[in-house]
Amino acid sequence: MIRTHEAGSLRREHAGQQVVLAGWVARRRDHGGVTFIDLRDASGIAQVVFREEDSVHDLRSEFCVKITGEVRVRPGGNENAEIPTGDIEVAATEIEVLSESAPLPFPIETDVNVNEEVRLKYRYLDIRREAQARALRVRSTASYIVHDVLRGHGFVNVETPTLTRSTPEGARDFLVPVRLKPGHWYALPQSPQLFKQLLMVSGLERYYQIARCYRDEDSRADRQPEFTQIDIEMSFVEQEDVLGVAEDLVGRLWSEVAEYEIPRPIPRMTYADAMSRFGSDKPDLRFGNEIVEMTEFFKDTPFRVFQAPYVGAVVMPGGGAQTRKELDGWQDWAKARGAKGLAYVLVQQDGTLGGPVAKNLSDAERAGLADRVGAAPGDAVFFGAGKQHSTQELLGAARLEIGRRGKLIDESQWAFVWVVDAPMFEETDEGGWTAVHHPFTSPKTEWADGFQDKPGEALANAYDIVCNGNEIGGGSIRIHRAEMQQRVFDTLGLAREEAEEKFGFLLEAFNYGPPPHGGIAFGWDRIVMLLAGRDTIRDVIAFPKAASGFDPLTAAPTPITAEQRKEAGVDAKPEGPAAPPNEPGHIVRPSEERY
Amino acid sequence: MIRTHEAGSLRREHAGQQVVLAGWVARRRDHGGVTFIDLRDASGIAQVVFREEDSVHDLRSEFCVKITGEVRVRPGGNENAEIPTGDIEVAATEIEVLSESAPLPFPIETDVNVNEEVRLKYRYLDIRREAQARALRVRSTASYIVHDVLRGHGFVNVETPTLTRSTPEGARDFLVPVRLKPGHWYALPQSPQLFKQLLMVSGLERYYQIARCYRDEDSRADRQPEFTQIDIEMSFVEQEDVLGVAEDLVGRLWSEVAEYEIPRPIPRMTYADAMSRFGSDKPDLRFGNEIVEMTEFFKDTPFRVFQAPYVGAVVMPGGGAQTRKELDGWQDWAKARGAKGLAYVLVQQDGTLGGPVAKNLSDAERAGLADRVGAAPGDAVFFGAGKQHSTQELLGAARLEIGRRGKLIDESQWAFVWVVDAPMFEETDEGGWTAVHHPFTSPKTEWADGFQDKPGEALANAYDIVCNGNEIGGGSIRIHRAEMQQRVFDTLGLAREEAEEKFGFLLEAFNYGPPPHGGIAFGWDRIVMLLAGRDTIRDVIAFPKAASGFDPLTAAPTPITAEQRKEAGVDAKPEGPAAPPNEPGHIVRPSEERY
Repeated sequence: MIRTHEAGSLRREHAGQQVVLAGWVARRRDHGGVTFIDLRDASGIAQVVFREEDSVHDLRSEFCVKITGEVRVRPGGNENAEIPTGDIEVAATEIEVLSESAPLPFPIETDVNVNEEVRLKYRYLDIRREAQARALRVRSTASYIVHDVLRGHGFVNVETPTLTRSTPEGARDFLVPVRLKPGHWYALPQSPQLFKQLLMVSGLERYYQIARCYRDEDSRADRQPEFTQIDIEMSFVEQEDVLGVAEDLVGRLWSEVAEYEIPRPIPRMTYADAMSRFGSDKPDLRFGNEIVEMTEFFKDTPFRVFQAPYVGAVVMPGGGAQTRKELDGWQDWAKARGAKGLAYVLVQQDGTLGGPVAKNLSDAERAGLADRVGAAPGDAVFFGAGKQHSTQELLGAARLEIGRRGKLIDESQWAFVWVVDAPMFEETDEGGWTAVHHPFTSPKTEWADGFQDKPGEALANAYDIVCNGNEIGGGSIRIHRAEMQQRVFDTLGLAREEAEEKFGFLLEAFNYGPPPHGGIAFGWDRIVMLLAGRDTIRDVIAFPKAASGFDPLTAAPTPITAEQRKEAGVDAKPEGPAAPPNEPGHIVRPSEERY
Repeated sequence: MIRTHEAGSLRREHAGQQVVLAGWVARRRDHGGVTFIDLRDASGIAQVVFREEDSVHDLRSEFCVKITGEVRVRPGGNENAEIPTGDIEVAATEIEVLSESAPLPFPIETDVNVNEEVRLKYRYLDIRREAQARALRVRSTASYIVHDVLRGHGFVNVETPTLTRSTPEGARDFLVPVRLKPGHWYALPQSPQLFKQLLMVSGLERYYQIARCYRDEDSRADRQPEFTQIDIEMSFVEQEDVLGVAEDLVGRLWSEVAEYEIPRPIPRMTYADAMSRFGSDKPDLRFGNEIVEMTEFFKDTPFRVFQAPYVGAVVMPGGGAQTRKELDGWQDWAKARGAKGLAYVLVQQDGTLGGPVAKNLSDAERAGLADRVGAAPGDAVFFGAGKQHSTQELLGAARLEIGRRGKLIDESQWAFVWVVDAPMFEETDEGGWTAVHHPFTSPKTEWADGFQDKPGEALANAYDIVCNGNEIGGGSIRIHRAEMQQRVFDTLGLAREEAEEKFGFLLEAFNYGPPPHGGIAFGWDRIVMLLAGRDTIRDVIAFPKAASGFDPLTAAPTPITAEQRKEAGVDAKPEGPAAPPNEPGHIVRPSEERY
C-alpha cells in the first residue's frame, strides 16, 4: 500500500506516530498561514494541517494526494466530536499530488441536490458522496448475508445461463443475434424460472442464485431493463417450508442491516382479505383506516350510483375541513386512475351529512352511515361502487393517498405481511383465463381436482411477501404432475404445440420423476432500497440507467456499423421454420410487480 | 417438508424410529418375495426393504417416491461399509409414487460414458449423477469462499451493468437491439474492466464481483460464449498488495476445497524466464525437462537451419527408442502448429548421435551436444531455430507433449507460479504495436518515462497466476496519469477521437483525481474445474452450451418472428452518425486466455 494508515482510523492513541495517508481533498480552509485540509478516503476523514502555505497553494477539491506527517492531539477546544477522528490532526511534512482534478460538475461534500441525469453522467463522482457510497456498501453487506443464510440452510448457489431461449414470462425478451448461427437469436432471461425448476428435477433439492434478469418493458419511473432477484427453489417442501426460509432470510437482513427485529412469524393475510380490507394485494399495514364494505348497507339504496355489485367506503379523518377545490381535486385524482369520480359525504359537527351525495341517500342510510363506516364529525367519507375488484383497488389507492396527505403513515415503522391464497386465474378482456402467477403454480389442495370447473374461484398455493406496501418477494408451490399441468394449459387455452414450443424442455424434463417443489424470488433492488432507506432503486444500483433505458455515463445504447451488423448475422435468413412469437400477456399477465 | 429425514443421514442410532423419506429409486433388487430399493436424495442413499412385492411391482428407476417405514439395523453380515448408511435399512410400510419416470436416455447410477450432447440435452438427468452434482456443489462452496475471503479483506461486492456499451477488449461483443431507442444497441460486456476502474475513481477503494462476461468468439472446444470471472480492483496499491490478496483467495480455495495447502509465497518467474525455460507464459511446473538455449552453442554451426537468431532444444527422455513412424509423427505435429518441422538427434548407447540432423553438425557440436542439453544415451533431442518468441513457443509445446507422452507429469501435484514483468507491447503484423494486456496497463517504474522509445523492450506492471500450466488469473497496476495514458495511446497509434469514442467516459473520469489502482481477474470456470478435478469447464457449468454456442437442452438460439424483429427495432435507422466499428485486435490483441 502506498499509505500506512486509513484516514478514518486515526485516534488519540496514534499521537506521535509518523503516518502516510492517501485520499482526496474534501475541504480546505486557510487561516493566516495555516491551511487545514480534510483528507477523505473510503474509511472516513482526517484533518491535515500545513504550516507552509506554499506547498498546498495549488491544491483544489478532489485532488488525489499522498500526505506524510505526524499525528498529534488537537489543541484543546479544537476537537470535533462529530467525526471519529475529531480528537487528532495530522501535521503534514510532505505532500504529493497523485492526480489533479478538473473543476467539479457538482460539489461532493455538501448535500446539495443535483439533477439526477448529471449525477448519473458523473456517477463516479456521485459515489464519492458519502450517502451514495453507503448505499452500495449496504448492498454488498446484504448480499453477503443472503449467501450466509442460504448456505446455512443447505442451499446450492447455481449460476444459470443468461444467453438462452425465450422464457414465458409477462414481458418482452431482449434478443441477441448469434453470429455463429446467423438468423438465430438468444434471449436474455426474464428470470431463471425454468432453469430453477429443471434443477429441482435434477435432484439438487435446494437452489439459490442472486440472478441478473432482463425485461424489455416500457419506460417506468422505477424500473430498470436489467435488475437483480434472489431466486430460491426447494424440493419436497410445502408452503410452510418456503415461508420459513424466506422469513429467516428477511429476518437476518433486517436485523443486521436495518437493526430491526421482525416479529416472527410474519403475519399472514389472504388475498381476499387484503383486497377487501386494504384494496391492494400489497397492503401497507403501517396504518389502519381500512376500507369498509357497504354493499349490504346500500342494498335498497335509492341512489343509482350505489346500486352496484359492490360498494365500499374509506374514511378520511379530518377530511371534512377540505376546501371545495381540494374535494374537486379528489375527482381529478380518481379520473386519472380511470374511475368516473369519487363520491363522498362530509360528516358535519352535528353528525349530519354534507356534500352532494348525501341528499341522494335514504333517511335511514344518512342516519346510520357515519356509525357504520366509523367516521366522526369533521371526517370525510369516500365511496367506490362497481365491479368488486376494480372498486376495491380504487378505494385502496384512495386509502394510501389519505394516509400520505394526512401523514397517517409512521415512516419509522416496518410492517411485514404475507399475502396468501391468491387466485390461480384472472379473466382476460377476451373472456379467457390467464395465470395470475405463472402457469406452473399449483392449486391449493382443495382445488386440486376441480380448479378447471371454477377458474375464477380457484385459489393457488402462492404467496407474496409485502413490506410497507412494497411487494418484495413472491412465489408458489409448483405443479409436478403432468396431468394437472395439462388441465392448467387447457384452462389457459394453451394448445399443446404452443406449450411445447414455449417450454417443451421443461415439460420433457417432467417426464422423469419430478419432485414436488416450490420456491420464491425476492426483488433485490427494492429490498436493498428499503434496507438502505432510499427512495429509488437507482440509488442502490452502481450504474443505473435512466427511465428510457439510456445510460448517461456511457451513452449506451449506440448505433452499430454496417460491418458489425453484417458480422452479427442480424439480417441472415434462418434455415427452418420461425418460432411463434412470444406475445406478452398471452399466457401470463404482465405482472404489476416484478423482481 | 413432506419427509422427516434425509436418506443419507440415517445411522445405527435411528434404529426403531418411524421415518418418512422422499427421493428417487436408484437401484432395485428382487430377492424371493423381498424387494430392496436404494432410495436416493441429495444427501445420499438409504436401502429400503419391501416385504410385499405387490406394492412395488410397478416401481422403476428414477420414479420419485415417498416412503414411510421403520429404521432397523441390518442383519449381521449384510452391512455395507461403502456407504454411510450401510449399517441400517428402512422396512417400508407405505409407499407413495410422487411422480413416474419414463425410460431413461442413459443410466443414472452406473458410471457409463454417455455422449456429451445427450448428457447436455438431458442435463437434469446428468446432474442426478453423483459426480456431476458434486461438481456443482464444489462451485457453490468455492463461490462462498470467494465472498468470505474478499469481505474479510474489506472489499465491496458491486454489481456492474451487463446491458452496456462496447468495451475495448480483444473479442467481438454480443449486441442487443433496444426497442425503446430503435436502431440503437447495447453490448454485453466482455469484462467489467471499465466499470471497475470507474469504481476506483469513485473512491470505493476495494471492489469485487463474481461477474458474468460475454465474448462472441469462434467455436473452440473449451470456450463458452458466457463465462464467469472473479473481478477485483484496489486503490492505493502496489503489485505486492494485489498479489497478497490473490494468494489469500487462492490459498483458501485450495485449502478448503482441494485440501491442499499452497506453499506461500507462490513463486514468481519473469515472463522472459518463463519463455526461455518453458516456452510458455503459463508454464506447467509439475515437471522439469526445460528448454535449453543453444544459440551460442551453434553460433558457428555449418548447419544452415541452425544459423538463426535463436536456437533451442528440448530433451525427450527415452525418445531414442521411437520408431521412424513416431519420429515422423513429430514432424506432422510441428507442421500442424505452423512450424516447418522439428529437427532432432537421437543419443545412441555409445554416446554418438543418430538421426538425419547429426551429420550436418560439426564434430565439436556432435561431441558436446548431449552434455550441453543434458541428454543421456537413449534420449531424443528436439530443436527449434528461428525467431526467438515463436521458436520458444514451439519448443514449449514440444516440452508439454513430451511430458504427456512420457507421463512425466505428476497429476496429483499442484504447481502454482506468478508470471510477472510481461512486455507492455507486442509488434503487430503491420509493424505497429498492440497492448499485450490492455491499454490501461502501467509500465514498470523503470520504464515509466521511456517506454515509448523502446516499445518492444518495455515491461509492464502486469502479472498472471498459473496453476498446472493453466492461466487462472491475471491483472495489472493501471495507469492513472493522463499524460502517461496519452503516450500509450500514441504508441498504439490510437487517434484521440478513436480513444474518445471507445472509452471516452473512462478518460473523462480520469480528469477528476483518479487514485493509483490495480487489480486482477480470475477465470472462475477454469478454477472450479481444477478444484473439482474435472477435465472441461462444461462440467462445472450447470447448463453449458456446446462448442458452437448451441444449447442442446433448450435448443437456443432460435429464429425470431417478423413481429419480434419489428418490435425490437432491429431494422430501424438510428438518428445521428454511426459509431466506428469495434474491430477485434485493433487496440488489444485477442487474448489467448480469457477469464
